[in-house]
Amino acid sequence: MFSRTLRLRTASWTSRTCARSPVNLYYSTVASKTRPKTVFSGIQPTGIPHLGNYLGALANWVKLQNGASPDDRLLYSIVGWHALTLPQDPKALRAARWEMLASLLATGLDPRRSIIFHQDHNPNHTELAWILNCLCPIGKLKRMTTWKAKLAASRNANDESEVDESLLNAGLFTYPVLQAADILAYRATHVPVGEDQQQHLELARDIADSFNRAFPKPKKIFPLPQHMIPPSKRILSLRDPSSKMSKSSPDVQSRILLTDEFAQIQAKFRSAVTDSQLGVTFDPVNRPGVSNIVTILATCTDKSSEMVAELYTSKGHAQLKMDTAEAVESLLRQPREEFKRLKSETGYLEEIAKEGARRAREISEGTMTLVRSQIGLAQST
Amino acid sequence: MFSRTLRLRTASWTSRTCARSPVNLYYSTVASKTRPKTVFSGIQPTGIPHLGNYLGALANWVKLQNGASPDDRLLYSIVGWHALTLPQDPKALRAARWEMLASLLATGLDPRRSIIFHQDHNPNHTELAWILNCLCPIGKLKRMTTWKAKLAASRNANDESEVDESLLNAGLFTYPVLQAADILAYRATHVPVGEDQQQHLELARDIADSFNRAFPKPKKIFPLPQHMIPPSKRILSLRDPSSKMSKSSPDVQSRILLTDEFAQIQAKFRSAVTDSQLGVTFDPVNRPGVSNIVTILATCTDKSSEMVAELYTSKGHAQLKMDTAEAVESLLRQPREEFKRLKSETGYLEEIAKEGARRAREISEGTMTLVRSQIGLAQST
Repeated sequence: MFSRTLRLRTASWTSRTCARSPVNLYYSTVASKTRPKTVFSGIQPTGIPHLGNYLGALANWVKLQNGASPDDRLLYSIVGWHALTLPQDPKALRAARWEMLASLLATGLDPRRSIIFHQDHNPNHTELAWILNCLCPIGKLKRMTTWKAKLAASRNANDESEVDESLLNAGLFTYPVLQAADILAYRATHVPVGEDQQQHLELARDIADSFNRAFPKPKKIFPLPQHMIPPSKRILSLRDPSSKMSKSSPDVQSRILLTDEFAQIQAKFRSAVTDSQLGVTFDPVNRPGVSNIVTILATCTDKSSEMVAELYTSKGHAQLKMDTAEAVESLLRQPREEFKRLKSETGYLEEIAKEGARRAREISEGTMTLVRSQIGLAQST
Repeated sequence: MFSRTLRLRTASWTSRTCARSPVNLYYSTVASKTRPKTVFSGIQPTGIPHLGNYLGALANWVKLQNGASPDDRLLYSIVGWHALTLPQDPKALRAARWEMLASLLATGLDPRRSIIFHQDHNPNHTELAWILNCLCPIGKLKRMTTWKAKLAASRNANDESEVDESLLNAGLFTYPVLQAADILAYRATHVPVGEDQQQHLELARDIADSFNRAFPKPKKIFPLPQHMIPPSKRILSLRDPSSKMSKSSPDVQSRILLTDEFAQIQAKFRSAVTDSQLGVTFDPVNRPGVSNIVTILATCTDKSSEMVAELYTSKGHAQLKMDTAEAVESLLRQPREEFKRLKSETGYLEEIAKEGARRAREISEGTMTLVRSQIGLAQST
């Protein structure tokens, strides 16, 4: 079973990162024996994940799942409605949703333990988003920086200031409110998302607090969700180490996909952009290309980047690249084989999605019954 | 049966207004024998309607219902989610929703013919609103004037320019998109709403067109809904004829409610603000108080305002007021008695609401199946 291997590996990665703060909080909140937690996180249906997605989110989700107390509740959602905030090709989106589901299972999420579902199969999210919209001043949404960056990227602008804000659609502008609804529909207590999402989580806390103050009777419904910053590394493009590894880059050599065979992984590392300086050092500012490969190797082998750099001080870039390709292969081989197997099992995937949505709705419907009643929309005379 | 009387009266009102344009369109589009129409309109749950609501919307809805072809579909919704765009007292909102439902039935809407339902019982509205949000530039929402007026009113500002826009909530800002979803969820072809809502209907057409262009395959889903401007009169406050008759005015003498007894109606007209000029003329600009009462009497008695004014030229204000009170009493007596009867039949009201929501969802679910499939969120592998 690949999942056992993965668990061992990620567990040791955990203990390493535990030694440093502020990452400690991430695991201490999960492992502590206080009241049961509800963990919620979402990922956009971008299709087959790349190494950055894997190390940044998916591996952490699996780790959280495997380290959770029996009473903890875990919800992982493929957030199709968020994908609509930027133009999508319907056919590609349809495929990407199922590829992402297969990927979550392939990397080790267990549908018997975690609730894995498509966001757009649970209408409670958009219902709650509407209600929360009515409590969220647009001034707060204007201060979010993410939509500016996304809008600039979607328009191929060099700078956020170049973009005409009136072209911004109301979906992209208000998606932090839908994100708040995603979380609050389950009254989640813990939200493992990257640092770039911290401002959205703060907004979600703010909105939860506004709701609790506006409608305190008979009881305050929403816990204020806590941010768990995953101990993940920022994995950069192999071709342009000034930007993150990304699905949207036109250069397919810039990213390692979960489905890449060993030969492809080797070829991509071989063509990875480094620099003309001899030897290896870990210096993300001045040597981003080399340092990115060092980071990947360090993450795959449970070492610190500094330690890896020291081991390779006098070695060539080629050696570093080939060793990293091997380490990545050893990490991704089992998820890749599992993904291949699952991808053709469409009936099974539909079953998983349906059951996940049923379980998710069961929880969120409980929240919505309270919400509707407290705001005056309950079904009673 | 009061509904027969009402039908006769409203029918003759219709023929009167038919003689003038642009009101003709309203009835000609309904009566014409082309393809079946889907009529959608909504009203906020403001509780017991006043005379302005009755003459401005409800009586027209009944008229549309009674004049519709057998193939036409009529949907009337109590739009609770829109009410949330301004602060609401939950207890009052809960009561108001049921009072509004009882009022719709009391004024003659027939649940066997029209689909009467609470918006918040059909989650397809907020789901579609989210999808349409992603197609609606915020520049278009900024140009809407209604939220500015509502925000100014809710803050007791003298002028729209006095209001701090950053306090605007995302619900009030984006409610024209929810309104578009209300209409498009049923692929409505005709929307009877007041002139003040014309800009929102144009936005709904615009959004429908954007969707059709963005997702034209396998077919364009949305008809562009037509505006039907009801042949209604603007009924003004009896105490301050510079503003519309309104539920939000603190002076209860300013409005006639559907539940007012004859003695109350008489008292309210007696204290109605007119002017110190002798006699009666129809001059809305210089004599808004007297002209408003003339308009009410004219509407109740199927005459033009000019004709009524002529009949009262040499009569006193007191005579005009008492005759108008009687005419209003004769119009509202039956709805009032019916309302009283219905209000205590909570089980029946719940039944009607439940059945209305079921029928509404059946139609909108058909639309949503197409929408989801065309944008790439369909439930298939």
